[in-house]
Amino acid sequence: MNVLAICAHPDDAEIWCGGTLAKYAKRGDKVTIAVVTNGEVGSPSLPKEEIAEIRRLEAIAAAEVIGAELIWLGFRDEFLFDTEETRLSIIEAMRASKAEVVLTHWPDDLYNPDHTITGQVSNDVAIMTTVPNIVTSSPPLAKIPIVYFIESVAGLGFQPEEYVDITDTFELKQSMLAKHESQVGDWLKDQYGSNAMEMIEVIARFRGIQSGVRYAEGFIRAKAYPRNITGSLLP
Amino acid sequence: MNVLAICAHPDDAEIWCGGTLAKYAKRGDKVTIAVVTNGEVGSPSLPKEEIAEIRRLEAIAAAEVIGAELIWLGFRDEFLFDTEETRLSIIEAMRASKAEVVLTHWPDDLYNPDHTITGQVSNDVAIMTTVPNIVTSSPPLAKIPIVYFIESVAGLGFQPEEYVDITDTFELKQSMLAKHESQVGDWLKDQYGSNAMEMIEVIARFRGIQSGVRYAEGFIRAKAYPRNITGSLLP
Amino acid sequence: MNVLAICAHPDDAEIWCGGTLAKYAKRGDKVTIAVVTNGEVGSPSLPKEEIAEIRRLEAIAAAEVIGAELIWLGFRDEFLFDTEETRLSIIEAMRASKAEVVLTHWPDDLYNPDHTITGQVSNDVAIMTTVPNIVTSSPPLAKIPIVYFIESVAGLGFQPEEYVDITDTFELKQSMLAKHESQVGDWLKDQYGSNAMEMIEVIARFRGIQSGVRYAEGFIRAKAYPRNITGSLLP
Amino acid sequence: MNVLAICAHPDDAEIWCGGTLAKYAKRGDKVTIAVVTNGEVGSPSLPKEEIAEIRRLEAIAAAEVIGAELIWLGFRDEFLFDTEETRLSIIEAMRASKAEVVLTHWPDDLYNPDHTITGQVSNDVAIMTTVPNIVTSSPPLAKIPIVYFIESVAGLGFQPEEYVDITDTFELKQSMLAKHESQVGDWLKDQYGSNAMEMIEVIARFRGIQSGVRYAEGFIRAKAYPRNITGSLLP
Amino acid sequence: MNVLAICAHPDDAEIWCGGTLAKYAKRGDKVTIAVVTNGEVGSPSLPKEEIAEIRRLEAIAAAEVIGAELIWLGFRDEFLFDTEETRLSIIEAMRASKAEVVLTHWPDDLYNPDHTITGQVSNDVAIMTTVPNIVTSSPPLAKIPIVYFIESVAGLGFQPEEYVDITDTFELKQSMLAKHESQVGDWLKDQYGSNAMEMIEVIARFRGIQSGVRYAEGFIRAKAYPRNITGSLLP
Amino acid sequence: MNVLAICAHPDDAEIWCGGTLAKYAKRGDKVTIAVVTNGEVGSPSLPKEEIAEIRRLEAIAAAEVIGAELIWLGFRDEFLFDTEETRLSIIEAMRASKAEVVLTHWPDDLYNPDHTITGQVSNDVAIMTTVPNIVTSSPPLAKIPIVYFIESVAGLGFQPEEYVDITDTFELKQSMLAKHESQVGDWLKDQYGSNAMEMIEVIARFRGIQSGVRYAEGFIRAKAYPRNITGSLLP
Repeated sequence: MNVLAICAHPDDAEIWCGGTLAKYAKRGDKVTIAVVTNGEVGSPSLPKEEIAEIRRLEAIAAAEVIGAELIWLGFRDEFLFDTEETRLSIIEAMRASKAEVVLTHWPDDLYNPDHTITGQVSNDVAIMTTVPNIVTSSPPLAKIPIVYFIESVAGLGFQPEEYVDITDTFELKQSMLAKHESQVGDWLKDQYGSNAMEMIEVIARFRGIQSGVRYAEGFIRAKAYPRNITGSLLP
Repeated sequence: MNVLAICAHPDDAEIWCGGTLAKYAKRGDKVTIAVVTNGEVGSPSLPKEEIAEIRRLEAIAAAEVIGAELIWLGFRDEFLFDTEETRLSIIEAMRASKAEVVLTHWPDDLYNPDHTITGQVSNDVAIMTTVPNIVTSSPPLAKIPIVYFIESVAGLGFQPEEYVDITDTFELKQSMLAKHESQVGDWLKDQYGSNAMEMIEVIARFRGIQSGVRYAEGFIRAKAYPRNITGSLLP
Repeated sequence: MNVLAICAHPDDAEIWCGGTLAKYAKRGDKVTIAVVTNGEVGSPSLPKEEIAEIRRLEAIAAAEVIGAELIWLGFRDEFLFDTEETRLSIIEAMRASKAEVVLTHWPDDLYNPDHTITGQVSNDVAIMTTVPNIVTSSPPLAKIPIVYFIESVAGLGFQPEEYVDITDTFELKQSMLAKHESQVGDWLKDQYGSNAMEMIEVIARFRGIQSGVRYAEGFIRAKAYPRNITGSLLP
Repeated sequence: MNVLAICAHPDDAEIWCGGTLAKYAKRGDKVTIAVVTNGEVGSPSLPKEEIAEIRRLEAIAAAEVIGAELIWLGFRDEFLFDTEETRLSIIEAMRASKAEVVLTHWPDDLYNPDHTITGQVSNDVAIMTTVPNIVTSSPPLAKIPIVYFIESVAGLGFQPEEYVDITDTFELKQSMLAKHESQVGDWLKDQYGSNAMEMIEVIARFRGIQSGVRYAEGFIRAKAYPRNITGSLLP
Repeated sequence: MNVLAICAHPDDAEIWCGGTLAKYAKRGDKVTIAVVTNGEVGSPSLPKEEIAEIRRLEAIAAAEVIGAELIWLGFRDEFLFDTEETRLSIIEAMRASKAEVVLTHWPDDLYNPDHTITGQVSNDVAIMTTVPNIVTSSPPLAKIPIVYFIESVAGLGFQPEEYVDITDTFELKQSMLAKHESQVGDWLKDQYGSNAMEMIEVIARFRGIQSGVRYAEGFIRAKAYPRNITGSLLP
Repeated sequence: MNVLAICAHPDDAEIWCGGTLAKYAKRGDKVTIAVVTNGEVGSPSLPKEEIAEIRRLEAIAAAEVIGAELIWLGFRDEFLFDTEETRLSIIEAMRASKAEVVLTHWPDDLYNPDHTITGQVSNDVAIMTTVPNIVTSSPPLAKIPIVYFIESVAGLGFQPEEYVDITDTFELKQSMLAKHESQVGDWLKDQYGSNAMEMIEVIARFRGIQSGVRYAEGFIRAKAYPRNITGSLLP
């Protein structure tokens, strides 16, 4: 199966669904991570282009931990909008990766517009991926991909409908995140008092307690027509 | 009374509120159907302009079944956005039809952005229709129209607050939809495995079972200030 | 049409749906008010039996303002439970009044268990009123009555789905409530800082502002099978 | 795996989750159906004991269609309450059937208190089934069973979180329901205008349209501690 | 503490959170009011520029009642969109006022897009105010401001999570609103049948009844990462 | 101020609001913990009376850590119901402790009926505590206490509306819980795979991440009439 995570910034996929992506990869699915914005505001001191390039390389390295491919859409960090270009870029990412399952942000999160717009547009365009009259570089998909929303940042306002046991891949998730050296160091601690490495442990453990396992990640499936949403496509 | 259905694509009004429109028409209300996009992606083989023109004629024919008028806004299929042009076009549709009641898409549907943006903008601009300082071809309305949301595609996530008994007009609804020959044939079955003629029977019957009649359609009224939302303006 | 309000305490029907009941009565419907508990805790000084009898007479006088009948179920104030006796008493009230429409408390209110249990049980037993094998003094109804929930006390957590314009009957509502002399005087002001006469003015005006008229009352219909819930049975 | 459906009346399990039970059975799981009340009001003319016995035999026959066992709890129809006896009976049903998965009514349905109390208590006692200090005929379970709520009657207010494709077992579902001869004949048509055989077709088809298959049934998992709710236990 | 109200039109802050702003001011906090659009459609007869200028002066006068400062963003009334310019303007308003608390519109209101977009964008950009790589005239904030949503117009669909007792500042609120002479006169009565001075009395009294005081205003805090949302920053 | 936690079992208060209780106590408020059931099923081997007595002593010891008083209501573990006796016992607990604030379980939790009934009844009877005609050992309260719901077990389905920073009292919370030796040892690990000491760390840290502090606990205030719910009574 072909799995595509579409997230707003470099490191988002790792933080919010890295254990699930690793589990897909481990069982042989083809995993792709699309990063929508270039992360260029992610530094207190480096100029935009420089930090963006650093983060792109970190994202590639993180993807490599599980043998995933990276698609870099390169939109401007913090200034993503729902435009024709955004829609077509995300359609193309789905087509290029031949996505059958898409993991993306939950559109009701109040955290950051890059997240909500990524989630909203990714679900919005799923239905367009199979339409011949919408032309992008890759050919139309044969089937509309199934969309799962990953949890909101810090789980605020989010109650998972489905849980994935990531006990066996939690270390891989940690390794993936650790590749984002520019983000897991002092910058986010200074900026937000947040420590990403500890945060993923707490949240995975919290979702684990909720779902009766050691570590877990939570999801809500997008219930939209016309998609085959019986069964579960989570690993 | 003047009733305006504002829907995203040719055939949406017929599928989701055709029985109610027919009931309005049957009792003597003036019914108008506004189609926001041109439906140009709605074919596996025809070029955009050709299928758009075919669908416009089908929409006119469907409207004629109940003596309704058609307003064709002509926005690009699958690429509707909330812009000044979109807002003004919909305001003008409301003014031109002297709308007292508006039926439009439910903004929380996860199906397609043309639907959600049509529903969102239609409700958003209702309050602007009476404002003299917003100028369009037709003069301002005397009263803000009342907005009802029609159900989401396949009813996903939607619980009607009000039901209309369409037992007596269900056949008219079928006749309206049948005019959309380009859509009720093989194309959507191939594309989505969906058969629109059967779908409207199942959904009308399902809403009928829920509401204790043979066939029904479901709605949620937009509860927004300052509108007279006492009583019901549904037929 | 036969309308039955089933409320927890004497004065509840007047406060929360008195304007609507008056409107039903004014247009010729037969209105009955069932008071489930005896209101015996409703005094800072009088013994239980005495205040209960005073309140029963006040309830009769209030009902008479609009020509309504009173059914006094006499359950213990503040100690209502969902028991066989409670269910059968409410079934009998519906049958005796030949109820086609029932107005009762909203079961999700956090105010007082007499309210929530009255609302819950009244909706629960609606389906039993037509069943021959459930025997009470009056014969089974021919049709399951339609249930509307009146708003929570002070409207907390409650968003009406339907509004009734009570501008023309608001004075009747005031007259009805004024009959509850034991309650609209100092006792509730001392006990709760609440002034029922002012409260009904504020709330009716607030619901009026929301719905675009002078005075209004708000309702949510119980959407339950198998009932004909198309159209509206509100006046 | 051991699957237990706990429903309020004879025929409820068949109507609301019969296709899923048949699918479990077909793949080799052990299926048990527990009927909580005796269905004694389910006739316009027969005395209570007689119709109850008829329905018990029908329930056994329906269960036999898929090789399921029947547990008859025998509580009074329409007068189920949350009591110690109710809790212990349902615990014992779970223990006797060694339930690992429980399908039961959705507690927020407004249809009938037998349904809501069955659903509420079944979820409530799941945690007690493993407790040694709560003694019933059968020994404690080793693990708390996972609870799924089946949909409300007529789907009112219910949005499934998970769908099961029952295309291959829909005919078995029809055969199961057909065994309830006393209920699928004229009585419910006269009483409620409802035709159970048609209703299951409409609802299965409606859920099928929503989920992209021919026939489906919908569920919501009870998300409660401490249960392993990762993955899915639906067939 | 520095408090910033960001509202769509001149008079919105006064109507929906004026009592709370006055209470902040009274206890010594620094209050700023940012008006996002120019209110240019707010007259039945005056040309746009003229009424916009009148309203700007009214807004200044209203702010002065409580010693607050006014920031006039000057976007086009009824045509606000989520653009880079909108985001940067609101970021700059937060930075210029050194906002620690932001009061803004509730994004789920169905009243008017200027309101929902103001609320949405104000919450969206809160996280950007501290980012060095996002440059506006004023320097980045040291801490992400806490966002509270004020209630929807007429309270439709809104249930406050926190209430502020404004009994002592209700008169100040009235004085603030009275400065908007162009709006509290006949225009809105003719246009919408609404009387702003009476409306604030009814709504403050309604929220007061709900929360057990004479006059109150209601709020919902935006629960978003990474913000310190313990305790309460309401006065 | 007088604070009363009313929880279902010995150790519930410590686990779900111990940090907040410690914070109240630390600043000088009088804290009481009422334990509704006797915890008699809380052992794999001990007879009911013995384990109940052990747990009562543990509860006293835990309360003593913060100088709180313990009220032991002694209802049967796992068999709590909403009865007159339950209501009167909880009223008396509120009166005896002169409660101004009550912390109790969230009634929508799906975990265990002792929890939901404790939460439901505690909120239900708050309004009865001041009524002279409801007689218990202690005199009526002067004012209805304010009720806060503590979070569901494992936070399932629960989104806090208010957070309390318990960083400074988290160690006290740990000390309180550690007194429940019969529960924090092997029994619950064997029974449920749960380790209470670790769980409180994970959950407090998770709520801390959500709310921007080290450790936090989350609450939802019961919004019910007629109570003064302005401001916050949380520490």
